Amino acid sequence: MKLREIGEDQLLGQLLSDLPLAKAVVHGPGDDCAVVKTRNRRNFLVLKTDCVVAGVHFLTTANARDVGWKAIMRPLSDFAATSALPQFALITLIAPEQTKVEWVEKLYRGLRRAAKRFKVNIVGGETSSTPGPVAISVSVVGFVERDRCVSRGGGKVGDDLFVTGRLGGAMKQKHLQFVPRIAESRWLTNNFSIHAMMDLSDGLGADLPRLAVASRVGFTVETENLPLTRGAKIEDAISKGEDYELLFAISPRDRTRLEREWRKKFQKLPLTRIGSLSQLSTKNKQLLPRGYVHFQQSG
Amino acid sequence: MKLREIGEDQLLGQLLSDLPLAKAVVHGPGDDCAVVKTRNRRNFLVLKTDCVVAGVHFLTTANARDVGWKAIMRPLSDFAATSALPQFALITLIAPEQTKVEWVEKLYRGLRRAAKRFKVNIVGGETSSTPGPVAISVSVVGFVERDRCVSRGGGKVGDDLFVTGRLGGAMKQKHLQFVPRIAESRWLTNNFSIHAMMDLSDGLGADLPRLAVASRVGFTVETENLPLTRGAKIEDAISKGEDYELLFAISPRDRTRLEREWRKKFQKLPLTRIGSLSQLSTKNKQLLPRGYVHFQQSG
Repeated sequence: MKLREIGEDQLLGQLLSDLPLAKAVVHGPGDDCAVVKTRNRRNFLVLKTDCVVAGVHFLTTANARDVGWKAIMRPLSDFAATSALPQFALITLIAPEQTKVEWVEKLYRGLRRAAKRFKVNIVGGETSSTPGPVAISVSVVGFVERDRCVSRGGGKVGDDLFVTGRLGGAMKQKHLQFVPRIAESRWLTNNFSIHAMMDLSDGLGADLPRLAVASRVGFTVETENLPLTRGAKIEDAISKGEDYELLFAISPRDRTRLEREWRKKFQKLPLTRIGSLSQLSTKNKQLLPRGYVHFQQSG
Repeated sequence: MKLREIGEDQLLGQLLSDLPLAKAVVHGPGDDCAVVKTRNRRNFLVLKTDCVVAGVHFLTTANARDVGWKAIMRPLSDFAATSALPQFALITLIAPEQTKVEWVEKLYRGLRRAAKRFKVNIVGGETSSTPGPVAISVSVVGFVERDRCVSRGGGKVGDDLFVTGRLGGAMKQKHLQFVPRIAESRWLTNNFSIHAMMDLSDGLGADLPRLAVASRVGFTVETENLPLTRGAKIEDAISKGEDYELLFAISPRDRTRLEREWRKKFQKLPLTRIGSLSQLSTKNKQLLPRGYVHFQQSG
């Protein structure tokens, strides 16, 4: 069997499921970030790695500064999902020997600009040559207060589901220039009890089921309520990825206050209730939707 | 200008030299590991990323378990250089879609075995497809006691230079199966004042000048004293890389005790005095050797 015949979730699930995890590990493989305990009683240590590959995450014709920006912002979006604050980044640049130094300099301008935007220090870098395409791997380390750490796994039956921003159409330009929702996420956990959260990188249709599985619940999405990017269709919002918006579950008791205070705080960024978490019936346990075709699962 | 026309040191030097580093950063880009201060008063946080690429760091015919082993052990060798203890690892696997799942499973067996050997927890993983060769990027996080942290930069004029193990000939097999000198390094800093240390990954002829530059000193190597792997020549020990042995500088006052106690503690592993650090004369400041041809630099 080859990699293309099995999904990333399944592969990583298989490979990482039998790892021996120390007691220090709060959230391990499978969540947006790894979260571990240290001697610090107030904070957890938060770790994330991610990569961008030419021809997969960006076109070879893309502006190198945008590529650098995206390479940093992707793992930072996972920090947003965890409500964590990033502090330090390590860069691994894998590039063919014929790469122009000018291109690499532009790439680093993008990396530095992105790091500066979130006060992240780039503290280390490695380069390697390759006979293949350019790839940039970024690892980020930071922290989250123990009582503000959010994972995919805390959603409860009856919770409202909200998304920030607008969905669909990100592949045109937004995927290279997005700003991770760290400020919004930090505000959320500072003012509300967020039960479960993740960032939408593969599209709602792929990502929401992951949150539901981790929380052991079902879900209902009112697709006609999805906040669409101008020109995007409902199918785009569900099946196209790279939105990097937040999806989160919160008690319906908080809805009025959340919507009122959000409007005051983030006037330009929509916040939309798109559905709710529901009971997972025994019957449906094995029938998690894989795309928008089966995009509804309630008990 | 293209990447092949400028060295890695020069490139990373250029790219990373003007990064704004926070006060928290003890050692940043250019040292073996990044070392940062946290609220923990006893320990520093230590970070390292590294990668292996098919066709560059391993042959495509190499055993996948060996590849996984090497992918973890390379950054751990940098932990040895810093005298730090690794705790958590993140894996980024970049692999073409036609890669066999069996190969990836073997790779993970190697990664897990290596992690277990040093009690490292693999807490996260990402995969990406690629139109190019397999690449595995590993990031490791750990700690070092503040008073045991070693860098390349603390060497003093008159210090003895020692190397562990034997040099040369690593490319045959050792480079895929080496064990980083973490135990040895921890023992050294627990019992001696180690002024400067690094691991030999690019060969003594490339690596020693880096330690000398960081310490702002010159050096003399008695090449006839180099400990050689069976079958290796002096030139191999100087110019061939991937030995992953430790090179360190220590006061000559400690020499007798060091050699005596080392023999008792690590009976099977040689420790060899290969030379010393010397004054860097103004005349020679710009004449750092790049390879074994110029392999001597004293004041």
